[in-house]
Amino acid sequence: MKLITSRENALYKELKHLATSSQARRKANCTLLDGVHLCQSYLEQIGQPQWCVVSEASQHHPEIAALLVQTEHQLILADALYHALSQVEHGVGIFFVAQTPSLVLPEQITQTAVALDNLQDPGNLGSLLRSAAAAGIRHVFCSTGTVSAWSPKVMRAGMGAHFLLEIHENVDLLSLLKNTTIPVLATSSYATQTVYDCDLKQPLVWLFGHEGQGLSDELMAYATEQVTIPHQGQIESLNVAACAAICFFEQVRQNLK
Amino acid sequence: MKLITSRENALYKELKHLATSSQARRKANCTLLDGVHLCQSYLEQIGQPQWCVVSEASQHHPEIAALLVQTEHQLILADALYHALSQVEHGVGIFFVAQTPSLVLPEQITQTAVALDNLQDPGNLGSLLRSAAAAGIRHVFCSTGTVSAWSPKVMRAGMGAHFLLEIHENVDLLSLLKNTTIPVLATSSYATQTVYDCDLKQPLVWLFGHEGQGLSDELMAYATEQVTIPHQGQIESLNVAACAAICFFEQVRQNLK
Repeated sequence: MKLITSRENALYKELKHLATSSQARRKANCTLLDGVHLCQSYLEQIGQPQWCVVSEASQHHPEIAALLVQTEHQLILADALYHALSQVEHGVGIFFVAQTPSLVLPEQITQTAVALDNLQDPGNLGSLLRSAAAAGIRHVFCSTGTVSAWSPKVMRAGMGAHFLLEIHENVDLLSLLKNTTIPVLATSSYATQTVYDCDLKQPLVWLFGHEGQGLSDELMAYATEQVTIPHQGQIESLNVAACAAICFFEQVRQNLK
Repeated sequence: MKLITSRENALYKELKHLATSSQARRKANCTLLDGVHLCQSYLEQIGQPQWCVVSEASQHHPEIAALLVQTEHQLILADALYHALSQVEHGVGIFFVAQTPSLVLPEQITQTAVALDNLQDPGNLGSLLRSAAAAGIRHVFCSTGTVSAWSPKVMRAGMGAHFLLEIHENVDLLSLLKNTTIPVLATSSYATQTVYDCDLKQPLVWLFGHEGQGLSDELMAYATEQVTIPHQGQIESLNVAACAAICFFEQVRQNLK
């Protein structure tokens, strides 16, 4: 276990670069998992992180001590140095540096999946991934314009869902959907069929778009079914993560019957 | 229509105080509605705001001009003055100052309602209110520890849902639920009954708690039914707004049948 007390330490400088620059994280194919819950999930689902980083003050905190026993590459940072890196206010004092997975894009989608076009809000994406994983969906395809799934904010909102999913990023959804033969479902307030009346007991692709503008016409053309969630007319639409949760769990409900 | 160009203008100082201090807003029983969509919804559902505030540069923007035609008390602010007030980056340049409603707390809950204990995240509360309004629920009761429903962040995430709801804040939920005779439902991963198997075709109270800690034992004791949303065991729980959306729309589905 190594204690770092100087801001000039080369490893500390590297960590700080990763913690503060999304570009640096992308280049290094890594992310930061902040807090006990995410770190514990990573150990359970994936394995050893590149680094387990804790603050000097918190190393004897019982939950953190329990994680330290399980990790190999540990760094203890003097408190001031740690707090310059952590993005969580009042955080408990631990984060992992972990590799993001490299996945090969399949030629077509054959199992139930989620395709996301231009989703902007990290909280929405994290919540949506959490619902998808909870509903037993495994495959997620994000367009180039979608917020980075491995950003620390999305990771925190995802609460470990990332480690149960295969998340493909920077995907050309038009090409992917062109080759897909299973049904593609999009929600639309103009649809006449409700999500409850649609047969969801089969592999299908759920397609969701931008929070404000929804799906582009080009992508909507690939939806083989448009479905509506019946709601009060005075409300224009639902939050996209709420909408996705309703869809995913209607599929769960139909498959339970 | 009045143009304000000086930071020393008394009305401008008052606006700035309201824009930057949640305490000042609470004291004045008012809130800020930022952006075209919220302002339009307010005009449609409630009526005239106290002030319609626009930036000089944006007053001729078609969407804003359309709103200006409909409002009585207008202030145009020099752009630099406006941007010191608006909380939305890249906002379109309009906000309303509007009264928050004063409601009398009923002695007991008789229609379908939502009770929220210690909900912390403005985005979660806004999304939840939006789902509730879309599901036709009208009554919301928030405990003292819950984030302020009329904060501008919650307003933005609510997308106008506030104007369709009766939102009671600082409610002593224990006293209220003690007097309530309709069923009170709480979600729990320990429950054996699924939300799909529970009869939701009746007035009931949905009870949700803190994002991390869930409901206190004291409040949980008032839940006449505990229900679970069946999900993959590796995911501990859903985001509270996603969970609420699934519950509200399962009730919609059952009532459609």
